[in-house]
Amino acid sequence: MRLRLDLGYDGSGFVGWAAQPGLRSVQGELERALATVLRLPAVSVTVAGRTDSGVHARGQVAHVDVPRAAYEATPGRSDRPPAEALRRRLDGVLPDDVAIHEVREAPEGFDARFSAVWRRYRYTVVDAAGRRDPLLRGWQLWHPRPLDVEAMDAAARGLLGEHDFLAYCKPREGATTIRTLLDFGWRRVDGALVAEVRADAFCHSMVRSLVGASLAVGEGRWEVTRPRELLDAVRRDSSVAVAPPHGLVLEEVGYPPDGELAARAAVARSMRRPVR
Amino acid sequence: MRLRLDLGYDGSGFVGWAAQPGLRSVQGELERALATVLRLPAVSVTVAGRTDSGVHARGQVAHVDVPRAAYEATPGRSDRPPAEALRRRLDGVLPDDVAIHEVREAPEGFDARFSAVWRRYRYTVVDAAGRRDPLLRGWQLWHPRPLDVEAMDAAARGLLGEHDFLAYCKPREGATTIRTLLDFGWRRVDGALVAEVRADAFCHSMVRSLVGASLAVGEGRWEVTRPRELLDAVRRDSSVAVAPPHGLVLEEVGYPPDGELAARAAVARSMRRPVR
Repeated sequence: MRLRLDLGYDGSGFVGWAAQPGLRSVQGELERALATVLRLPAVSVTVAGRTDSGVHARGQVAHVDVPRAAYEATPGRSDRPPAEALRRRLDGVLPDDVAIHEVREAPEGFDARFSAVWRRYRYTVVDAAGRRDPLLRGWQLWHPRPLDVEAMDAAARGLLGEHDFLAYCKPREGATTIRTLLDFGWRRVDGALVAEVRADAFCHSMVRSLVGASLAVGEGRWEVTRPRELLDAVRRDSSVAVAPPHGLVLEEVGYPPDGELAARAAVARSMRRPVR
Repeated sequence: MRLRLDLGYDGSGFVGWAAQPGLRSVQGELERALATVLRLPAVSVTVAGRTDSGVHARGQVAHVDVPRAAYEATPGRSDRPPAEALRRRLDGVLPDDVAIHEVREAPEGFDARFSAVWRRYRYTVVDAAGRRDPLLRGWQLWHPRPLDVEAMDAAARGLLGEHDFLAYCKPREGATTIRTLLDFGWRRVDGALVAEVRADAFCHSMVRSLVGASLAVGEGRWEVTRPRELLDAVRRDSSVAVAPPHGLVLEEVGYPPDGELAARAAVARSMRRPVR
């Protein structure tokens, strides 16, 4: 049977989502916690957004296939449904920089990675017009010069739609870099500059490259039209800086209605996009 | 001449505000940074709220007396006023868990500690009805059981006014424990329980003892009337638990109009309250 897991984490202490031998990853911690609680020799988790080193998540989604008998036998059940018992046990076993928000039995056809129809990220920057708050420094980029949020917002909106985002991707052999950017804009919230970025999927380092281009515009180093010109040139451009990871949070993953999960997954698998 | 400094810090990495030999304190870091930037052998800083180990601040206020010549000669002035040049230099020299929000030449009669008319703290708790967010764990207390916020709020409001807060103080030889509690209430904000606590001053561990009593009420272990009964008994009570420090933030310090600063300081000094 397949379980859907909704979770959040502080990426500061991890090499990223993906397990790497000998290094501390979210995937590694989660798979170990699941194996411990369900008394299985090993489990393998699939995730919606493979976040990079230092990137955080509030609304990450993963799935795992486990024997029904192990799930039904989750310790500490008493009068709780097994999903809630498992959530509590996992939350107790995991370190305090990972939180399990919910465990559910996945609907038919659900695949955390391939059924997803969009991912939404948030990037937060505090510039010289704001106030550097040491309590928020783990997930706000401090930019000690003033930024022009209107220019950043205009440049961001110029990138919306379906395009080949090669200029903002680290290309991988044989993988398409065509994506549909559904939302991208900048606004001031409580003295900080916040970008909401939503797309069907992201290629590697795409959100941070889009933010890097925004910062160049916000500082006045680039014209507002430059990010779009780079997009239209459809080639990697070394002038696009990748913004630091700690300002980035995966906020939410969108899925279609249950009846469309399997069909969506089949389409996404056939496109073989490296999904983030 | 006297300078007023407004600052914030993440208390996690400090033994508290007060300098202690060989240990990392906010006072120690700030005095070292001031001495470095102003090229003085040593400086001594006076603070409005002497926060305990692990307690944070967003609106801490301090003062320091320095030779005018050293202040006027702050490096990196160019066309900036010396106060802004000093703020930038300090912010550059200090570690990233301390931020200097503002430096000003203090008005006549200003004393960061004795001129203050109130201190406002905030305490944040996430209970089982909320969602544990690893990104906020540095300044939110995680309480894995449900809390009754209405009961907590009613109990808190029963403590408002001028009283002898001995039941909620670690008493010190010869110091009064009479305080005026100006604001104290609980409400839910974005799924968290937030207390705003404002008083003319606080005795040692007073805010965290008030929060500890609130949690006992919120869990249903105490009647809503119990915190007030303890107050009225005017004696230390070992049943009052001191809540953990990391949920507590000093948010703001209030001062009277400039013309009343010196008079207020004279009154406060004569009362010799150990001010927090």
